[in-house]
Amino acid sequence: MKKKILAFGVSTFALMAGAVNASADEAWRYFIGDHEKAQITVIEQGNDPIVWDQLAEPARLHLSEDGELLFAVQRSKGRVDVAETGLHVEDHGDHGDLHLEAPAWQGLFLTGARPTHFVLHGDEVAAFMDGTGSVAKVDVSAFDDAFEVNYTVTDAPHHGVAVPLHDHMLITAPNMEEPGSLPNHVQVLDKDGEQLGDLHECKGLHGEASSMHKIAFACIDGILVFDEDDLSKSAFLPYLEELGEGRSGRLDGGKTVQFFAGNFGKDKMIFIDVEGEGSFTSVQFEAPLVSGYLNPANSGEAFAHTADGKLHKIDAFSAKIVASIDATAPVDMEQPWYAPRPNFTFAGDHIALVEPLANALKLISTDELAVLEVIDVAGKPYSIVAAGGHLSDH
Amino acid sequence: MKKKILAFGVSTFALMAGAVNASADEAWRYFIGDHEKAQITVIEQGNDPIVWDQLAEPARLHLSEDGELLFAVQRSKGRVDVAETGLHVEDHGDHGDLHLEAPAWQGLFLTGARPTHFVLHGDEVAAFMDGTGSVAKVDVSAFDDAFEVNYTVTDAPHHGVAVPLHDHMLITAPNMEEPGSLPNHVQVLDKDGEQLGDLHECKGLHGEASSMHKIAFACIDGILVFDEDDLSKSAFLPYLEELGEGRSGRLDGGKTVQFFAGNFGKDKMIFIDVEGEGSFTSVQFEAPLVSGYLNPANSGEAFAHTADGKLHKIDAFSAKIVASIDATAPVDMEQPWYAPRPNFTFAGDHIALVEPLANALKLISTDELAVLEVIDVAGKPYSIVAAGGHLSDH
Repeated sequence: MKKKILAFGVSTFALMAGAVNASADEAWRYFIGDHEKAQITVIEQGNDPIVWDQLAEPARLHLSEDGELLFAVQRSKGRVDVAETGLHVEDHGDHGDLHLEAPAWQGLFLTGARPTHFVLHGDEVAAFMDGTGSVAKVDVSAFDDAFEVNYTVTDAPHHGVAVPLHDHMLITAPNMEEPGSLPNHVQVLDKDGEQLGDLHECKGLHGEASSMHKIAFACIDGILVFDEDDLSKSAFLPYLEELGEGRSGRLDGGKTVQFFAGNFGKDKMIFIDVEGEGSFTSVQFEAPLVSGYLNPANSGEAFAHTADGKLHKIDAFSAKIVASIDATAPVDMEQPWYAPRPNFTFAGDHIALVEPLANALKLISTDELAVLEVIDVAGKPYSIVAAGGHLSDH
Repeated sequence: MKKKILAFGVSTFALMAGAVNASADEAWRYFIGDHEKAQITVIEQGNDPIVWDQLAEPARLHLSEDGELLFAVQRSKGRVDVAETGLHVEDHGDHGDLHLEAPAWQGLFLTGARPTHFVLHGDEVAAFMDGTGSVAKVDVSAFDDAFEVNYTVTDAPHHGVAVPLHDHMLITAPNMEEPGSLPNHVQVLDKDGEQLGDLHECKGLHGEASSMHKIAFACIDGILVFDEDDLSKSAFLPYLEELGEGRSGRLDGGKTVQFFAGNFGKDKMIFIDVEGEGSFTSVQFEAPLVSGYLNPANSGEAFAHTADGKLHKIDAFSAKIVASIDATAPVDMEQPWYAPRPNFTFAGDHIALVEPLANALKLISTDELAVLEVIDVAGKPYSIVAAGGHLSDH
């Protein structure tokens, strides 16, 4: 079902066309989940927007690492759906050629009791079902009409997370003393689901990310780090006293350099070098942090959106803000976490920021931190991923 | 994907055409899961067979009560797929008109850890996931691209079963003393998943069926019976001493009369009137029972297939064998339960029996107990359901 529901902001577009089209052979497709409506809008320059509404409820969107598959997690309705983004990476041996075909809704991918953390790692996905404390693992590279689902079941339902590592898996162990609380441990499982070694302590675990071959979990008092190449041990990096009160509960991992970033307390972002004994730096904002991520194209850069509406560009290695702009209206952080707050992702040398209450997708250059284009999006654009890149011309 | 893989057994068909086509406006469609191959063959007189092979492994088939949906349970691969049988019941107020359209593969319906007992009750289905001890409930009448899945999670993984009753659910409670053993209790849950009243004891529960508003579970020492109209209590009917050694582990429920049937020990079938204090009758076969069911068109009749290859017609109320024929080759009951044994279902006034090792579907009249037709089916036809009936001519 296709519906035409928006037009590109023509005046803005005319003004900034040169910048947006800097690279004629680059194309990006934005997939935007609405905050209220059970629908996903697909936006791409030069094409009519497409609306997919075969959802049971508003969805959290995730993209496979190769950009070919889009996943729509619908926690309370117990399902995850999948679509083909249309992006195809053709293996040419020494390089991959990128082609963009029409996006295609595929339908049901997984069912489960409260699917929540959805971790895409390499060519695998691990969907943690909080309601049963189990994880459904799928080899995304083998996705077809009859793909197999592998299950690992922990001892009790909990708000957990799993990281699939082919023959191994890192997975939270439920807190059996206080059912319903955050997990306090990570376990390493072999391919038969058998636990290897002891439990690895990570009190109040919430937040996970990978960077190169390191996997980090955010604990109440520090960061627990595994190395994919040797899962027999882990390292624990306690938060430094100088970071002040607080903890991290959301992590992001560098794609070009081994590096981690995370939120910390209400108004800080931390940067973590996990080698050796580890080191932390932090940046303090003047307003509460809404969201912050490392630039996947350059892990030395981070971007953070704060509740005063500002978007900041940060030198991640020195933890210094290098530029700030007014990007959105102020955000009311007194509202619960599921309120319609803005969010952003990256699309090549652009940030793609959705502002639900302004019905807008904003494209912002990562280089100059300039708003290049504002695209009207009907409804409350809320969860965003972007698939694209430099298309092949041969 | 359609493949032509068989021809109707022409000589047999010519001989018996009169009988099979006794009712010109009656049509039946047979859905047959293979024992070894991940495929379902759809067989219908006058049409080329269709093969659906978008499965992850050989599947156990189930049919919705209205005959419109086919479900393919793939236990070890963690998925259930669904297809439209093509049967449509059109509501004409005082009666339902039956129409038959092309069958259509739909694809994924549920994922879960070891989906096993799959109970269709009214317009709901409850798929019990043994691996997590949870049950996924779907309103089949609301089946569409974005159907909702409701979960109920028991205290531990177990080989369980649930019966969906709209605002209530009967569901096994795991045996916490001996994890991995059969459940010893049934619990009644309200629509919020809260337990009503006490646990209802049913030691070593295995086997469930419904008849009219009664729901019965087979326990090691008797039958536990609930009445859908009053779930505050249950009745327990201990096996009579005269039944001898054994227990029931498979039940079937009458569709036209409130009545139950079950296996008992290796070579008996029992019939149970669950009203009041209940009463049991039994029939002893000369060979082990392979499978036995009540005729859905006439609950006063049962049919049983025994390991000597005989098919028996039984007066269910008197528990007397009234006719027997040689229907299949002898069946080796020393093989495990998942061996390629014959199975049968009902299609109007015919029994449709598949004999995997004979690559055959046999149509047998329920009235005369005569083999009317033998249809070659490639592979090892194993799990069978039939959708059809008297088609509307107005």
